[in-house]
Amino acid sequence: MDPKLGRMTLKEWVAIESDSVQPVPRFRQELFRMMAVAADTLQRLGARVTSVDMGSQQLPDGQSLPIPPVILAELGNDPTKGTVCFYGHLDVQPADQGDGWLTDPYVLTEVDGKLYGRGATDNKGPVLAWINAVSAFRALEQDLPVNIKFIIEGMEEAGSVALEELVEKEKNRFFSGVDYIVISDNLWISQRKPAITYGTRGNSYFTVEVKCRDQDFHSGTFGGILHEPMADLVALLGSLVDSSGHILVPGIYDEVAPLTEEEINTYKAIHLDLEEYRNSSRVEKFLFDTKEEILMHLWRYPSLSIHGIEGAFDEPGAKTVIPGQVTGKFSIRLVPHMNVSVVEKQVTRHLEDVFSKRNSSNKMVVSMTLGLHPWIANVNDTQYLAAKRAIRTVFGTEPDMIRDGSTIPIAKMFQEIVHKSVVLIPLGAVDDGEHSQNEKINRWNYIEGTKLFAAFFLEMAQLH
Amino acid sequence: MDPKLGRMTLKEWVAIESDSVQPVPRFRQELFRMMAVAADTLQRLGARVTSVDMGSQQLPDGQSLPIPPVILAELGNDPTKGTVCFYGHLDVQPADQGDGWLTDPYVLTEVDGKLYGRGATDNKGPVLAWINAVSAFRALEQDLPVNIKFIIEGMEEAGSVALEELVEKEKNRFFSGVDYIVISDNLWISQRKPAITYGTRGNSYFTVEVKCRDQDFHSGTFGGILHEPMADLVALLGSLVDSSGHILVPGIYDEVAPLTEEEINTYKAIHLDLEEYRNSSRVEKFLFDTKEEILMHLWRYPSLSIHGIEGAFDEPGAKTVIPGQVTGKFSIRLVPHMNVSVVEKQVTRHLEDVFSKRNSSNKMVVSMTLGLHPWIANVNDTQYLAAKRAIRTVFGTEPDMIRDGSTIPIAKMFQEIVHKSVVLIPLGAVDDGEHSQNEKINRWNYIEGTKLFAAFFLEMAQLH
Repeated sequence: MDPKLGRMTLKEWVAIESDSVQPVPRFRQELFRMMAVAADTLQRLGARVTSVDMGSQQLPDGQSLPIPPVILAELGNDPTKGTVCFYGHLDVQPADQGDGWLTDPYVLTEVDGKLYGRGATDNKGPVLAWINAVSAFRALEQDLPVNIKFIIEGMEEAGSVALEELVEKEKNRFFSGVDYIVISDNLWISQRKPAITYGTRGNSYFTVEVKCRDQDFHSGTFGGILHEPMADLVALLGSLVDSSGHILVPGIYDEVAPLTEEEINTYKAIHLDLEEYRNSSRVEKFLFDTKEEILMHLWRYPSLSIHGIEGAFDEPGAKTVIPGQVTGKFSIRLVPHMNVSVVEKQVTRHLEDVFSKRNSSNKMVVSMTLGLHPWIANVNDTQYLAAKRAIRTVFGTEPDMIRDGSTIPIAKMFQEIVHKSVVLIPLGAVDDGEHSQNEKINRWNYIEGTKLFAAFFLEMAQLH
Repeated sequence: MDPKLGRMTLKEWVAIESDSVQPVPRFRQELFRMMAVAADTLQRLGARVTSVDMGSQQLPDGQSLPIPPVILAELGNDPTKGTVCFYGHLDVQPADQGDGWLTDPYVLTEVDGKLYGRGATDNKGPVLAWINAVSAFRALEQDLPVNIKFIIEGMEEAGSVALEELVEKEKNRFFSGVDYIVISDNLWISQRKPAITYGTRGNSYFTVEVKCRDQDFHSGTFGGILHEPMADLVALLGSLVDSSGHILVPGIYDEVAPLTEEEINTYKAIHLDLEEYRNSSRVEKFLFDTKEEILMHLWRYPSLSIHGIEGAFDEPGAKTVIPGQVTGKFSIRLVPHMNVSVVEKQVTRHLEDVFSKRNSSNKMVVSMTLGLHPWIANVNDTQYLAAKRAIRTVFGTEPDMIRDGSTIPIAKMFQEIVHKSVVLIPLGAVDDGEHSQNEKINRWNYIEGTKLFAAFFLEMAQLH
């Protein structure tokens, strides 16, 4: 395979402004074009391609926009081989050169071995690396070591609209022969050392509304005689987490998986330059001083963040208002083996308890508006061992075994619906800047990533 | 005097859309027209009228708008008589019939003895009542019992732009012969019982900013390892006031005037139907159960209200953001004899103390962005006694001696600059809805208010 060819395709794909976040017809047209181009690429590779019509999407403003098709593709169906399904997405975050891009975000531009462009690392580059790996076997006229399936969507950045319904529907059809699912939609934790991701945190998002009346009050006319909703809300939010980051909701740590010696060793093995991490994050001081504690509190312990308040005075200036009704928002990142509905009960009970002690005449309503389960895989699954061996072959090193502190709902979704082993094999370096200005993928990562996927196919073949 | 004539003039004045809040040329033209019409009315009354050019106003968007002139007018300068200066304003709050007005806000409409229209009670009606009282003496060809001065502005609802500079400049000119200052720009505390206002609370407005870095964080990527600014801020705001409304800043109550038996009796004498007050406020329960406690906590004790947070997530929906920098806003309503700069120090020290105990690596900055002193008059001043007697004559009752929980900066300003006794003699009933939809003044209040001012002139004459 000529790696230059792969880079040419990446340039073409990056040039398509497949922004799924801004719901305007122009970008939707680009998304449809993107999916058609990808379907064509897969067809030329010899795959059997279905572009599934996803219907349309009703926006809050009443507008209706078509959803780009999801590509389901199959390459080989030799029953003696394993079948690996690759998930990827070809939509991108918005990008505007005026926002601080040094180059046109939709013109792939190489500077010092870095390929700058929107979608270069998230997720067009990794999708193409997988395709390149397949086409390498084709170019060498070799049989594919495994059967390959693709599920490629165009709405990931907009919340994977309607994807779950499709996966549910295809569970016993497209996914029936699938043995393993590979996702390559996150980043390494390092600039140079590859990684395998085996878990993500979940998230339960809460709102707590405190209401005196619909209308606001004037603080001159009513200040001093009211149970002010903001005072209640600030007390409620202040009861959730202490200054060391410890969550104060009773029972919340009960189901957190116990820490094993083996697990501690995985954190020790990871290279993380704390000083550099702190500097690049522009944070003066973290809550913890050691690499192990930092990683554990990002990955294997829950965290609680207060996001803000709706209904209070949030603008510049000095308004003397007593808000009549306010809604606080916070969320808890969940880890194995915390249970979303148990957490919902614990948080609700805790807030009701704190509120009742205030003897406030206001009304409080607690709601969990989002509940996403944490996901964790068995790192001793055969495909994890295969991925490790492939990394050793291509990079000559052990991978960092990492988790992601964020939630990657598709990983959990595939695991729950398809019931197969899911692995995240990122290709991009920690500084790739997905979602940011000047997103890039290193030339090296893109080429070595392609090799890694090819090596992974060969390793997977050994399993059968 | 024909009261119908007065009502005709009120109709003409209400018809002028003298909105000073919306900074658009059309309303400014209306304001200039309003001031010209008023100057003409005063001239026809025989007053010597000066319309002071107030220059122009630079808006935040760079636009420049002319400020309507302030009218200074004098009627009589008999050195054997006392001189009473009346302050009023002829600008109004915005009004739009679509916002819930039952009648056109700029067409004075009488329904069941209520005169509906924007500015009817705030403040065009009371200004005209004063003018009507003066013209009654003219119509009866009687000498005015006192010398009268007027200071009428057109920017009160926009913060009395440039008024203080003018009063300072005129201190030894226009104001040199003034003995008493009367303002009639607030409301009774009752539907039928007149009142005299002898004090207002001040206000010190604070911001407390907590900063980790300029940019926000993603709660998945950083949740668990940061001193989150929102957790710090919620703890800071939560340390300010307890659930009974008691302010927790050490020393804050030290300078609050001690409560005397005489003062308690003034609260007892006030008629306030708590049940009706609670219902009309649409509040389920106040912090206090007795009339006296309610009034004291609105008027003679400080109160602290938390207004909101700038920089956090304040929109609908579920954003998983860790705000990088947030600014909390709260204010304390000050009462005699609290001192603005002492309060500033107490609050700052308290917040620094709470913050330092958190061992947070964030930066905290406390600022007092506004400091308005409380105002209190001596209710035994001669003009207070004269006003009481006039009320007895016209209404056959003792007035409610009331304060205002809000700040009326002009009262304090006149007292501080001109050093003369200031009294607030409201004419409107508690339900007049100043600043609201369906603002009105009762026909009865308007006419009896006119009589009250005439009786007040006669009482004032007794003082000399």
